[in-house]
Amino acid sequence: MKFGGTSVADIDRIRNVARHVKRETDAGHEVAVVVSAMSGTTNRLVEWCREAAPLHDAREYDAIVASGEQVTSGLLAIVLQEMGVNARSWQGWQLPILTSDAHGSARILAVNGDEIVKRFQERKEVAVIAGFQGIHKETGRITTLGRGGSDTSAVAIAAAIKADRCDIYTDVDGVYTTDPRVVPRAHRLDKVAFEEMLELASLGAKVLQVRAVELGAIQQVRIFVRSSFDKPEDIDPNAEPPGTLICFEEEIVEQHLVTGIAFSKDEAQISVRRVQDKPGVAASIFGRLADANINVDMIVQNVSENGATTDLTFTVPEADYARATDVLTKAKSAIGYEKLDGATDVAKVSVIGFGMRSHAGVASEAFKALAEKKINIRAITTSEIKFSILIDAAYTELAVRTLHSLYGLDKASA
Amino acid sequence: MKFGGTSVADIDRIRNVARHVKRETDAGHEVAVVVSAMSGTTNRLVEWCREAAPLHDAREYDAIVASGEQVTSGLLAIVLQEMGVNARSWQGWQLPILTSDAHGSARILAVNGDEIVKRFQERKEVAVIAGFQGIHKETGRITTLGRGGSDTSAVAIAAAIKADRCDIYTDVDGVYTTDPRVVPRAHRLDKVAFEEMLELASLGAKVLQVRAVELGAIQQVRIFVRSSFDKPEDIDPNAEPPGTLICFEEEIVEQHLVTGIAFSKDEAQISVRRVQDKPGVAASIFGRLADANINVDMIVQNVSENGATTDLTFTVPEADYARATDVLTKAKSAIGYEKLDGATDVAKVSVIGFGMRSHAGVASEAFKALAEKKINIRAITTSEIKFSILIDAAYTELAVRTLHSLYGLDKASA
Repeated sequence: MKFGGTSVADIDRIRNVARHVKRETDAGHEVAVVVSAMSGTTNRLVEWCREAAPLHDAREYDAIVASGEQVTSGLLAIVLQEMGVNARSWQGWQLPILTSDAHGSARILAVNGDEIVKRFQERKEVAVIAGFQGIHKETGRITTLGRGGSDTSAVAIAAAIKADRCDIYTDVDGVYTTDPRVVPRAHRLDKVAFEEMLELASLGAKVLQVRAVELGAIQQVRIFVRSSFDKPEDIDPNAEPPGTLICFEEEIVEQHLVTGIAFSKDEAQISVRRVQDKPGVAASIFGRLADANINVDMIVQNVSENGATTDLTFTVPEADYARATDVLTKAKSAIGYEKLDGATDVAKVSVIGFGMRSHAGVASEAFKALAEKKINIRAITTSEIKFSILIDAAYTELAVRTLHSLYGLDKASA
Repeated sequence: MKFGGTSVADIDRIRNVARHVKRETDAGHEVAVVVSAMSGTTNRLVEWCREAAPLHDAREYDAIVASGEQVTSGLLAIVLQEMGVNARSWQGWQLPILTSDAHGSARILAVNGDEIVKRFQERKEVAVIAGFQGIHKETGRITTLGRGGSDTSAVAIAAAIKADRCDIYTDVDGVYTTDPRVVPRAHRLDKVAFEEMLELASLGAKVLQVRAVELGAIQQVRIFVRSSFDKPEDIDPNAEPPGTLICFEEEIVEQHLVTGIAFSKDEAQISVRRVQDKPGVAASIFGRLADANINVDMIVQNVSENGATTDLTFTVPEADYARATDVLTKAKSAIGYEKLDGATDVAKVSVIGFGMRSHAGVASEAFKALAEKKINIRAITTSEIKFSILIDAAYTELAVRTLHSLYGLDKASA
């Protein structure tokens, strides 16, 4: 069971978390709990580090910031004990949770979950583990996993103790077919495959850290996204709770052609016109952008008509648009292109689903439906389980709603 | 160098502390630094524990509260690095500082200072150590030393690294002959012996934790009490700084008859009249008070006149007066006494000095001087280096000033 910062923001909410835990232990389940820092705490600690020095030792940053989760783990253990649940806190260095030495964004290398399992079996002691943190084996120093790292902690610990499931309690009750604020008829998915979730998560359905989903897939940990705001008393621990299970494809009996529609308006499009169609040109363009730390997303390159020049279109985050065009303009002669154009009022809409692999024509249906709504498609990219289109931003909602209906994702009653 | 909570209350003050440290390293001194939590932090953490459960697991309390010093140690390390001083933070469990398992008030058992010494010598790396905390060897859990424990941490670490001196930076500039608010002519002592300091400290000159002084005496660590509010720039690190050195008697060349006058108004007097003068009676009275967790201080018992009954007088903290009389009244027949009386408007004045051991008549001079001022003495106790008198509280200031002058403690100009 993993609880984020808003779920443990004060003692009352920590008490609510404890009731969720007690509900599970009362039902006879063996649980371990991972907690984030009380919301606001991490920001305050980070701000102190910046005040101390704008550029600061990441090892000290980690020692400072990890204290937030340390406090929450202790407080939850106290509240659980008060409710009659045997519990104790564990810091990353105590288990230990061994990580790389990439301070501030360390990767978990190994988790020792033996003691957690043993203590639960011997004395029903619930482990309350400080998320987000670990220790580097050689240096013995505290590390942190980077923002949202507690999700990753939870999945890694679940794998170590061979948990049946890793429940991530969040401020939403699951993963939706698309943003319900845009499409009121969006519905919660009961199950979603890891690969699909990776596409959905990285495309803006910010329910769960991408790294946690990756780790879940690698370590075969079924992740269950559910709401921490449900009253613990109202939940039957032996019934199927509301939420979304992220699992392997095989577990999803009722497969849909399309699982969800993601979209992002923070995109900018850049087109490099009549660039030399020869090896190394793409590397020359994207290498320069990478050096400038600009993240490139969609890339479209057409087969050139004349075999001499081609057009290359790609997207960058809207905030990086000016910088990206600047980088390319300066390198115009080095790259060898004729003209640069672009637009910032564009949006990317992605359709995701495992079913696409085996069904032809999924994308073409979309193009037809969008054409009927007079929505112009600027660019298209496709992959195994996803296709993305770039359109004028003004049409985003219309496009998402159109596709949501087209693929039968609208729930019966809105 | 040890800095308390008010000295590290915010980043600006931490910067001031860093300048103190840099001054010393610039002068070629090898230093280790011990820090408390930023002032207010510990209280907030303690309050959260209480909110979580009025009676809570001391092990969780320790994990929570120790986070305060963790943050300060990291922040000071960052600020030092920013100033060009190589530095790193150390948590109690990292060195380690091994303690007993008396969570919340653990005793330091062993400190490993090897790495601190080695790193300073190899790369001039200043150790910034989180005070107040340690780890219990067998359980591997975080312990804390109790309030003011950072002083004790500092002395223990100083002993482990064989420091020449342990500098305690406080909000006063040393130990005074008595409270300067009562006696404006009180002056700062340049040196004071451990035994004297123990009497002064436990009697209310709250400059330094009693346990830190005890540990200094046992481990032979010279402790220097000095002000953290002095501007680091104004201090010549090679000159004798202002402050009080707590050291062994032998180091104090110019011995005075009396070192200081301590006093306490929070006393209550209880007299048990015509108690049976037979073995076991004192144990019967004080055993009952100890069971009720009431601390008894001065105890006076006269030789009985008739060999049958005697009067027994003692003091308790004023706050415990009602409880103490209640305990004794209920046990009247079991103890076997005739009458109980007492007073809460009393004060204890103590005169402390090594010189007393070799000079007769030190106390009698005091009795004479107080009699001249018409101050009635209710009770007297004496020990090797101290005598205490119990008087009416209204006369406290007059008595302290009279004795301060009598023993030549007044400085030349007020």
